[in-house]
Amino acid sequence: MTPEPVLVLVPGASGAPQDGSAPFHIAEEGAPQLLVTDLAVTRGDGVFETIGVFDGAPVNVGPHLARLNRSAGLVDLPELDLDTLSAAVDAAIDAHDPVPELTVRVIVTRGIEGTGTPTAWVHARVAADWSRYREGMKVVTLDRGLASTVVDTSPWLLPGAKTLSYAVNMAATREAVRRGAEDVLFVSTDGYALEGPTSTLLVRHGDVFTTTPVSAGVLPGTSVATIFAALEKEGLSTREELLRPAQVVESDGAWLLSSSRLAAPLTHLDEQPIPVDAQLSRRFVDLLSGRA
Amino acid sequence: MTPEPVLVLVPGASGAPQDGSAPFHIAEEGAPQLLVTDLAVTRGDGVFETIGVFDGAPVNVGPHLARLNRSAGLVDLPELDLDTLSAAVDAAIDAHDPVPELTVRVIVTRGIEGTGTPTAWVHARVAADWSRYREGMKVVTLDRGLASTVVDTSPWLLPGAKTLSYAVNMAATREAVRRGAEDVLFVSTDGYALEGPTSTLLVRHGDVFTTTPVSAGVLPGTSVATIFAALEKEGLSTREELLRPAQVVESDGAWLLSSSRLAAPLTHLDEQPIPVDAQLSRRFVDLLSGRA
Repeated sequence: MTPEPVLVLVPGASGAPQDGSAPFHIAEEGAPQLLVTDLAVTRGDGVFETIGVFDGAPVNVGPHLARLNRSAGLVDLPELDLDTLSAAVDAAIDAHDPVPELTVRVIVTRGIEGTGTPTAWVHARVAADWSRYREGMKVVTLDRGLASTVVDTSPWLLPGAKTLSYAVNMAATREAVRRGAEDVLFVSTDGYALEGPTSTLLVRHGDVFTTTPVSAGVLPGTSVATIFAALEKEGLSTREELLRPAQVVESDGAWLLSSSRLAAPLTHLDEQPIPVDAQLSRRFVDLLSGRA
Repeated sequence: MTPEPVLVLVPGASGAPQDGSAPFHIAEEGAPQLLVTDLAVTRGDGVFETIGVFDGAPVNVGPHLARLNRSAGLVDLPELDLDTLSAAVDAAIDAHDPVPELTVRVIVTRGIEGTGTPTAWVHARVAADWSRYREGMKVVTLDRGLASTVVDTSPWLLPGAKTLSYAVNMAATREAVRRGAEDVLFVSTDGYALEGPTSTLLVRHGDVFTTTPVSAGVLPGTSVATIFAALEKEGLSTREELLRPAQVVESDGAWLLSSSRLAAPLTHLDEQPIPVDAQLSRRFVDLLSGRA
């Protein structure tokens, strides 16, 4: 039997609760906890992070919560209390049955309409089985409808904010499946490879590893930061640079990185083959799971 | 005291509930009703409509529910049972204390992760006080980041679907307030006026009334359909045609139409004045509230 998920509600996510109650507490996971008037529900108005936990150890909690706070700032949510959120993440992991891979989601919403107080919670559950994707996956490029200059020109389009408004990301993934692929590489209107709907692009050309610059409106990837730090220690070159899809195809390897699925190598981009280095992919998976 | 909102849960929104329970029932509004694993919450993955109710009479229920079903189709949700949803809307209105203006929201989500069964509800509450906006409002243009050809080129960006992923719409409205305005007119990357974040554009040039064609990726407006029908009866011309913001400024009147706020005339677009015809605006408000 799959162990039960754990839910921790965090009324103290942006400061001590007004009513003097505890900043977080474990709640009944299978019971309804949200009002239909929460702006997360009615407007997809909130921010989130997904943290991977491997053999009980969470990876990159600090960078994930820092990025959550960054996203909150981008959508004009109050500054977050990261110590409280970090303690809530620990409490969720502690309360969960030990499993090899756990997925912990941290969510902060704009709260119930009219209150101005964010709603926040941490949800821990057994990770999906991503092993197939870690072997390799077919990816298609899809236009994201935004130029690579969107951060400067149109910040209200929320480039680089990890919000709960992911309907387009989900629709893009369904489109990929319709095209016989497993995932998407979003492309800017000016023709640059950006990121996946829930992942960061990493491309290898010889000894040079490239990811998309945050200035192009992508999320600052926590996983790529971990891999870059390891590669740099070995004297390899890492770059933030815009690539064309053709440069991804002509690479020595390309991956979509994320905190639960870890490193998923691309076998094909728009049906054009890309070399897969199984050994390097496994090394990335070990690095990103903290098992290296 | 403001009358209490009414909540009707609709387990039969896409067909009779498997467990043989009623297709809809009134639930406790102030109590949590949603799981944190509902895809509305985690992904903004669902569709909605807002119906105005004036002196107890809902306006355009049929067109709103038809558009809800259209949105559901655009995001690959199951076909909706519009009779059940319509009966649930009636039940919510009947259960609410009589008030001059009621706002009824109908929401259908992709449901709890892994179940494949939509979650749906109808929520009725006293309308916000929109009277100030019906007098006139300052509007700014903001780039929406999508070309007017997006429906053909990139349907996965969900143009014209009224989804719960409205974080960008909300951020755009905050940007308008920062600029000293009250609302936004979204503009396509190729320079055409589109729609507001929660409203449809109507522009008058003499005896010709123009709205944005649905082919440009905007929502098919229920309010503009009502107004067009009335204008056509009087022999006036109505058109679906793309306009430049400059053509909106040079008009004899422009409005942003929606089901709760009704007809809000633009006094300014990007600080350039637009004539306001108070009498015609009042007539549109009467038409859209069914009080004409």
